[in-house]
Amino acid sequence: MKPLFALCALAIIAAAAPAAAQKEPDYVTPGSVVEAAAQKEWNAIPAQDLLVMDLAPDARGNPRRVIIQLMPQPFSQPWVENIRTLARAHWWDGTSVNRVQDNYVAQWGDATEEKPLPDGVESPNASYESGLRGDALPPDVPYAFQVDPDRPSPAMVDGFPVFRGPGPRDYAGFLGGIPFAGTMTPHSSVIWPVHCYGYIGVGRNVAPDTGTGAELYAIIGQPQRHMDRNLAVVGRVIEGMEHLASLPRGHGELGFYTEEEADLRTPIVSVRLASDMAEPPAFEYLDTTSDSFARYVAVRANRDDSFYTVPAGGADLCSVQVPIRRTAPE
Amino acid sequence: MKPLFALCALAIIAAAAPAAAQKEPDYVTPGSVVEAAAQKEWNAIPAQDLLVMDLAPDARGNPRRVIIQLMPQPFSQPWVENIRTLARAHWWDGTSVNRVQDNYVAQWGDATEEKPLPDGVESPNASYESGLRGDALPPDVPYAFQVDPDRPSPAMVDGFPVFRGPGPRDYAGFLGGIPFAGTMTPHSSVIWPVHCYGYIGVGRNVAPDTGTGAELYAIIGQPQRHMDRNLAVVGRVIEGMEHLASLPRGHGELGFYTEEEADLRTPIVSVRLASDMAEPPAFEYLDTTSDSFARYVAVRANRDDSFYTVPAGGADLCSVQVPIRRTAPE
Repeated sequence: MKPLFALCALAIIAAAAPAAAQKEPDYVTPGSVVEAAAQKEWNAIPAQDLLVMDLAPDARGNPRRVIIQLMPQPFSQPWVENIRTLARAHWWDGTSVNRVQDNYVAQWGDATEEKPLPDGVESPNASYESGLRGDALPPDVPYAFQVDPDRPSPAMVDGFPVFRGPGPRDYAGFLGGIPFAGTMTPHSSVIWPVHCYGYIGVGRNVAPDTGTGAELYAIIGQPQRHMDRNLAVVGRVIEGMEHLASLPRGHGELGFYTEEEADLRTPIVSVRLASDMAEPPAFEYLDTTSDSFARYVAVRANRDDSFYTVPAGGADLCSVQVPIRRTAPE
Repeated sequence: MKPLFALCALAIIAAAAPAAAQKEPDYVTPGSVVEAAAQKEWNAIPAQDLLVMDLAPDARGNPRRVIIQLMPQPFSQPWVENIRTLARAHWWDGTSVNRVQDNYVAQWGDATEEKPLPDGVESPNASYESGLRGDALPPDVPYAFQVDPDRPSPAMVDGFPVFRGPGPRDYAGFLGGIPFAGTMTPHSSVIWPVHCYGYIGVGRNVAPDTGTGAELYAIIGQPQRHMDRNLAVVGRVIEGMEHLASLPRGHGELGFYTEEEADLRTPIVSVRLASDMAEPPAFEYLDTTSDSFARYVAVRANRDDSFYTVPAGGADLCSVQVPIRRTAPE
């Protein structure tokens, strides 16, 4: 196998091997920074924030498990509660992935649209934004990127670009491990979670409908900023994204499978909260206020090794994937 | 079928129907702008810039044709010439897609790495950037976005954000239908094509190797700015992207198929230049200096219809997909 992109992989392998057993690599990669992070820099993801979706096995009989982290506070709370209720009611069991539009979304739910929802699951009259008090960045967001040219970014994320909203004091960053964008006013600010690859949102009818959470989609291509603040972002796939992204595309309107393609719908066997499982999976994420995360962002924005010789000087908010790893075996 | 995302589709359908036959929709979408563009705003893509790759039929026997537009001047010329030579030599016939890494690339070429290259096909000693003279934007790039805060963007693309390179006078825009980024110095500028979803680059070994073009990859996820100027961008998929993006992911290092998964490699039946075909496909793209393209960008950055009610105020360079359409039937 030709060593295309090979040195970056070597760096990860080198960092994963016992440190005393070999020479330190003379370059740093995002992977080596993550491997070197201290255990205290990792935060556990609560089991009630983990959703485990088992699709029917693939044509070769291989299992297809997709694990989703639900958005923590302060993001998207009413829909997240609906999703927990739906999972506890086993509502998705027997439904299917019905829409796969290339470079856009894979979407699942009840294809018949006749399945009754559990009591209390309604389209919430809620905002896609979260309000924060004060005229500064949230105190636990030291690495937010300030888009306002009069307030330059912290040196750490100099050139960390990427989001520019409609107002003059817009910013973007990470809060509790979640990438967000926001706008500041003199005495308060609002923030919202952004759509990135693998992130989960709530399908809905035309506004003012906000969706219930029974119909969900995952981003399988270039994230689109016009979806932010118009649809509820409720989670992200943290394992098994390939099982959604590699599904055959639909050829009906908006990528829905046509009636002739109805057999391409992928059956959903079950969806459960990890907190309701006998042998739950467990994960942790790299604290986005940690020194290692800051270093990870800087290295990602300025690759400098034997393969990448011209640093970009910046990275898209969505390309800075928050490191997440298993703490319980599969 | 539930009308999720339905009104935007209705707008496209309405615009595509005979104008006299029905009421004008009272909102504008990117699709309706493209449908309304005048024929003189479309430019033909030369047949020698079209590469037609036929993969083996899928498991159901459906054909899988991928059509690639090769980069026009001034982008990536030595590699593009190599690719034409390889296609004329039928070099890819019998090779395969060997690597599919989720949220990154699908890559194809000779899995054995022993197939001799045609005469003259070598790794060029060339730059990934193109130099331009003068201290202004290229004259035919009226819609470039100026990142320098001292030189505000044209009103048309106010808030059209997205690229921020290492220098203070960086910009991004479209030249000849191709999205690019660039840096200006007092008396000249350099520009380079950027990696977007569906764009094709040249696999290579570690620098200073630049690759020949025999090993190619397509972006199948979030585009990564650190790839720009470190790898040659030589084209983009303009039809059939789903046949690459929906392939099963590889589980070897970097997403290569392992030996146990070798049967997942997708055979390439043939790769031909359209100019060498008896019945060539033909395409045209919306002139990126046209009024309709300007309107398309503005509408994409500020969706305002019954579905999208909060305008983003900007769009990523890569999310402004240049409209391309067939002019010869399939």
